[in-house]
Order: sequence, then C-alpha cells, then structure tokens
Amino acid sequence: MELYDGGVTQPRGFSAIGICAGIKKDRKDMAMIMSSQPCTLAGTFTQNIVKASPVVWDKNIVHEYKIAQACVMNSGVANACTGKQGDDYCLATAQAAADALDLRPEQVLLASTGVIGRQLPIEKICEGVKTMSGMLSDSRQAAMSAAEAIMTTDTKRKEIAVTFELAGKEVTIGGMTKGAGMIHPNMGTMLCFLTTDAAISADMAQKALLSCVQDSFNMISVDGDQSTNDTCVLLANALAGNPEITQEGEDYEIFRSALELVTKNLARRMAADGEGAHALFEVTVTGASSKEQAVVLAKSVIESSLVKTAIAGHDANWGRIICAMGYSGAVFDTEKVDLTFSSRAGSVKIAENSVDTGYSEELATKILSEDEITAIIDIHEGKEMATAWGCDLTHEYISINADYRS
Amino acid sequence: MELYDGGVTQPRGFSAIGICAGIKKDRKDMAMIMSSQPCTLAGTFTQNIVKASPVVWDKNIVHEYKIAQACVMNSGVANACTGKQGDDYCLATAQAAADALDLRPEQVLLASTGVIGRQLPIEKICEGVKTMSGMLSDSRQAAMSAAEAIMTTDTKRKEIAVTFELAGKEVTIGGMTKGAGMIHPNMGTMLCFLTTDAAISADMAQKALLSCVQDSFNMISVDGDQSTNDTCVLLANALAGNPEITQEGEDYEIFRSALELVTKNLARRMAADGEGAHALFEVTVTGASSKEQAVVLAKSVIESSLVKTAIAGHDANWGRIICAMGYSGAVFDTEKVDLTFSSRAGSVKIAENSVDTGYSEELATKILSEDEITAIIDIHEGKEMATAWGCDLTHEYISINADYRS
Repeated sequence: MELYDGGVTQPRGFSAIGICAGIKKDRKDMAMIMSSQPCTLAGTFTQNIVKASPVVWDKNIVHEYKIAQACVMNSGVANACTGKQGDDYCLATAQAAADALDLRPEQVLLASTGVIGRQLPIEKICEGVKTMSGMLSDSRQAAMSAAEAIMTTDTKRKEIAVTFELAGKEVTIGGMTKGAGMIHPNMGTMLCFLTTDAAISADMAQKALLSCVQDSFNMISVDGDQSTNDTCVLLANALAGNPEITQEGEDYEIFRSALELVTKNLARRMAADGEGAHALFEVTVTGASSKEQAVVLAKSVIESSLVKTAIAGHDANWGRIICAMGYSGAVFDTEKVDLTFSSRAGSVKIAENSVDTGYSEELATKILSEDEITAIIDIHEGKEMATAWGCDLTHEYISINADYRS
Repeated sequence: MELYDGGVTQPRGFSAIGICAGIKKDRKDMAMIMSSQPCTLAGTFTQNIVKASPVVWDKNIVHEYKIAQACVMNSGVANACTGKQGDDYCLATAQAAADALDLRPEQVLLASTGVIGRQLPIEKICEGVKTMSGMLSDSRQAAMSAAEAIMTTDTKRKEIAVTFELAGKEVTIGGMTKGAGMIHPNMGTMLCFLTTDAAISADMAQKALLSCVQDSFNMISVDGDQSTNDTCVLLANALAGNPEITQEGEDYEIFRSALELVTKNLARRMAADGEGAHALFEVTVTGASSKEQAVVLAKSVIESSLVKTAIAGHDANWGRIICAMGYSGAVFDTEKVDLTFSSRAGSVKIAENSVDTGYSEELATKILSEDEITAIIDIHEGKEMATAWGCDLTHEYISINADYRS
C-alpha cells in the first residue's frame, strides 16, 4: 500500500475546484468538492466550546443525516463569533450550492477558516458558489486548486492519495488539509477533506476516522491553540463496488490502515508547515507502561515553547525536554530517561538515566540543523509507545501572528 | 498599608549579600540571606515531578524541620537532572555554609536556577559561600546585590517591602524574586525569598503563603513551561515582638493581606519582565459563577501564543481571546462574552455578546501600544472574578531561548 501524489478527485465520482472569489486579495479563497453519488459521511470537529457556525452546521449533518454530496469551503474569514448572522449565512451558502447543484441544503457541508469575529462577505460567497458549480472537474489540476484555496498561512498545499484492493475491487482514498497556526487538535482538527470510493457504512466510516485521527491529527501541535473551526470529514460514495463494510473484520482493517496512512501523512506535513517552522520535530516515547502515558509525554514535549525555541536554535538543551515531561501530568521514573536525537545527519545519545552522557555538542548541533529531527525518549517501564509531531518556534511565527490581520 | 522600595534585609535581623562567584562570566551569580535568629519557615515548590536537587533539599527542611536560618542561592546552573551527584553537591553547599555561619546543614536552605542537566562547579560554590559569609550586611545595597545575583534572563531586579502594625508592633515583610522564562508556576514558583520579622507559627505562615501564592505567582505565565526549580520560601524570625500568630483571626488577616500585597507586586513584575516582553498583559475575568471558572478562563487567555503575539503586534484580534476561553476546559455561555481593552491610552469595548461592537481599530491599536494592557472579560454569569498576568510574545523571546546556552 503506497501513498502517491493525488488529492480529493482521485477516487471515482469526485470532482472539485478552487477559485478566487474576492474574499482575499489576489489569492484563491473558495473551494468546492462534489460527488456524483450521495456519500456516506464521517466527521470529527473541534472540542473548543466556541464553535464556528459551519462547524455547528456540519456536526448536525454528520450526526443526524449521515449523508451529503458536496462541500463548500472558504478561507479568509472563519465565520466564528458571528452570532445568529453567522448561522444565517451558513444556510444562505448551502442554499446557493443546493440551487446550483440540484441538491437539498442539508446535503451540503460547509467549512470556513480565517479571521475570527468577522462576518462572511455573503454576496461574494454566493457568487463564488455559482461560479464554482460550473467549473467542477475530476482532474488532478482541479483538486490542486481546491487544496490551494483552503490555505491561510500555509506555505504548501497538503494533498495525498492511496489506492488499494478490497475484496477484489480497487479502492482509492484521497485527502487534502490545511493548517499552520492555531493548531492543537483535539478529536477534530483543522480543515481536512477525505474522499473515497469505498462502500462503507456511516458507523464504520466514523469508527475508522476517529481511530485514525487519534494517532495523526490529534498528535500534532503547532502553537497549543485549539481552533474554533477544526473540521475533518470523510465522504464515501461506494463507486468502487466493494462489498459494503458494515462491521469490523479484514476489509475494515485494510480500509482503516489505508486511511491511517493518509491522515498520518497529512498530519506530519501540517506540523512541518507550522507557522514559521524551519523544522519538523518528531518525538517518539518508547518503553511506556501504557499508550496514554506515552501520548501525554510526547505531546508535552512537542508543545513546550522552550523545547521548540531550542530546536530553532539547533541547541541540544535536553533539560527542557525532561522538564516538559515532568510537568506533563504523566507519572514516570524521573531517574530513568534515555534521550537520543537523530536526523539525516546522524544520531546521538544525549542523556542516559536522566543524566548527561557527555555527548559531542558539535555532533548534536549538526543533527539538530536538519529540517526533520527526531527525539527518541525511552522511559524503560513497558512496551507501549507513541509519536507526536510539532515544529520549531521561530522569529517568523512571531512576525506572522503579530501582523496577521494587517 | 503601602508597598515601598526595599528587599529581604528590610525586616529586623536579616542580612544578605550577592557576589560574582565565577559561575557566570562577569555577572553576580551567588547570593546569601541570613537571619540573626532561627526562623519559622513556609515554602511552596514546583509541582513538576522532575525536581531539582535543591528543591528536594528544601522541601525536606520546610516540611520536616520547619526551621532554618540561612539561604544560599546560585544562578547559572539549575542543579536539575544531575542525579546523585546533584544531591551530594547540595549537602556539600549546605555544609560549607553551616561551617562558615556556625549552623547545622539542615538550617540552610538552597536554591539554584539556570541550565538544566549540568553539574554545579562545586569548588567555586563552596569558595563563594565562604566569601559571602564574611560580607553579609543588613544594608539596602546588600539586599539589592542578592536580588541581582539570582537573575538569569531577567532584565530587572524584583524587590519590594511593606511595613504595617500588628497588635501595636511594627512588622515588616521584604521579598525578592527572579524569573522571566520557564514561568508557569503551579503551587510553588520560580525563586522567591520572603523575609519577615513577624512572629508567626509555621502552620499559619504556610497557610498564609499558600493562599497568597494562589492569587499571585500561580496566576502568571510567561511561556507555559513549568520549571524544575520553582521555589518560594518565607522566613519569619519573630524579632518584631508581636504576639505570635497561631490561629486565624484579625492578626492573621492583616499579615496575610500584607503578604499578598508583596507577592502580587512581585508576580506582576515577573510577568512584565517575561523573556522578550514589551508589555504586561493583565486579564480580569468578571461575572463568573465561581472563582475557579474565572481562574481557568483568565489563565487560558494569558497563556495563548496567538493572543500573546497579537498583543505584540498591537492588534485587537479579539477572536483569539474568545477562542482561548473556548478551549480552556471551563464551561460558559459562548454567546454572552463582553470584552474591553484598556490602558493608559484609554478604554474600548471590543465585543458585546460575543459579537464585534464595530469599535475603532485605530483607538484599539493606540490602547494596545502601551506597556501595560488590561483585558476585562465579563461572562455575565455571577459575581466571582480572577486576574491573571502574562506578557506579549515577541521576537526577543525567540532570540533569548534559541541561543540560551551559547
């Protein structure tokens, strides 16, 4: 099972497009995904109790209707903290898409990302919906334009696809995501759109999605700020013709593994493209007595501002890592931590039994100067492990966020 | 009851000194405080399960012996993650001070701050202890030198004193603190030394200290990283001659109020001098249904990297504040938040019922360009409130922490 360069139009029956609708200046800012057939749905959303209007809209569709056929997305304005008008604008957007695509409004998912507290420019949005409806295409180019239109401070498009066999049928999953700041997902996450031509029940799709999100998007953090707009949806249109997956078993496991490949790839790329990031920082905690303990420790390390600035400075200031483990809330033997840094430039053991190994600072700096860095932390308690992804904290993060609205 | 410029030598019977012992290059790096009489003790310490050796040493003295007479502090090296050798060096330091001051080692409190993972240069430390023992003085200058010697990335000395009457006797509390980074105290905090000539039992001193720390040091955050070395101790030598405070009542309340004035002043100054900070950011949540709810909301706002960078950019990007409240874990009516920014330059209501008021961006920017900024958040649920203090997140924070060890 191999990932390849592809996006949301890769599975049969899905078309998409991204355009400049005039919300942002001279940049693509609206996207649409459409399936030729009604799709089974799964979705996870932000746990922030302040939820953007489109999040409330989508949650209702995912949990009540469990079927949809199109998605309309915009960047530039988050439609969060916009009161009743924000909700009305969601209905207006879905209605415009329903009219143009011959659907009902409740078959249209919505997603917004951008500045919180501003109202959507609803006329531009409805105009954009009409324009996009006439431009939908299943080409690679169309998927790329959609992935580009949902970017905010992202510097890179984030798309991926995987094709595999399920009960003799060729099945494809495609995905795109955005997110570089306010990234600290919890259950749901950022904007992520996953399409597949697999036949799978809503319950099993939801189960697979939750399981994959747990080990991918929920294991990344850029800045500890959990967004009001996090949304991750999976649309499955059954065009692959595989026997519908309705229970756990071999087919479900194959599908889940493929979906996990996609979500981990997208999550990793989101962390690497964190606002201002120069390096992807991967932390693997091994030797844990439980998965939960490993998760808490790994996340605490990637979230620490002091660890992140040390990585930015290519500085093996390992005490900050042990310190971040210490305040994580997880209990472990503080005298038994081994820490190794590795990257393309090599590998060096920094601490053994929580004490300095007398490592070469020169080698450590060389290893930490690469753009993908891994810390392997062994706590010698058991056999469980977890990996989390973050990035360094740089001057550019400050510049991006001090001037975000200007 | 008025605060005034003073430090740990202000109460009767306390002397101090700070010197260059050669741990850091050309900067003061060791300090000592000594009382002419044995002192009743109270102390709070880091909740990080990775604890520096001097924290373990002090906790034992505070909780087992409850009496001490001297403190020895060093900056430059934290003596954390240093294994058994770190513990041995604590004993060696306390023994050197005991020899020089004619005390027992368990009457000597210790505190270290600086790089984690390095061993103390123990010969320089013991030499420094000897030197300081001959230089102790109760002068204002001596207190200032001690306050200077415990600084790391701090840009300003932080000292304060208050004198008040207790049962007809004049009582004084003096304090000094340090801390600019790895500041996210929980119960204990940074290095803070409080001296008083009040007569107070250890139990009541501990009770007063815990209560004051809760509303002062535990309400600040610079970077969300909770140190391995946080230490806050109060030494009371009874020389004021007031009837010993042994229970709650009027005298206890007066003493507690005076102590709170001191700790809040020092905490506020620590936040204002946060690493790289250009502005003190004070957040008051009012209209809460419980104190705990107000505390959780206020702290979530001051800890948000995105709020902190917005303040650095003088940008009234208020959605980030509501967002940080939303993921705090506290439950509140997300449709009923009022937000006002104020500073020396004026006051402006930014959001009402969680929706933009149509405020003047120009005025907001002017208000946010001052070096002390307050956000007042009313959640219209009840009568409880809480205040937290943080600072903006600037380029200098990155520079300081990317290059900390070089």
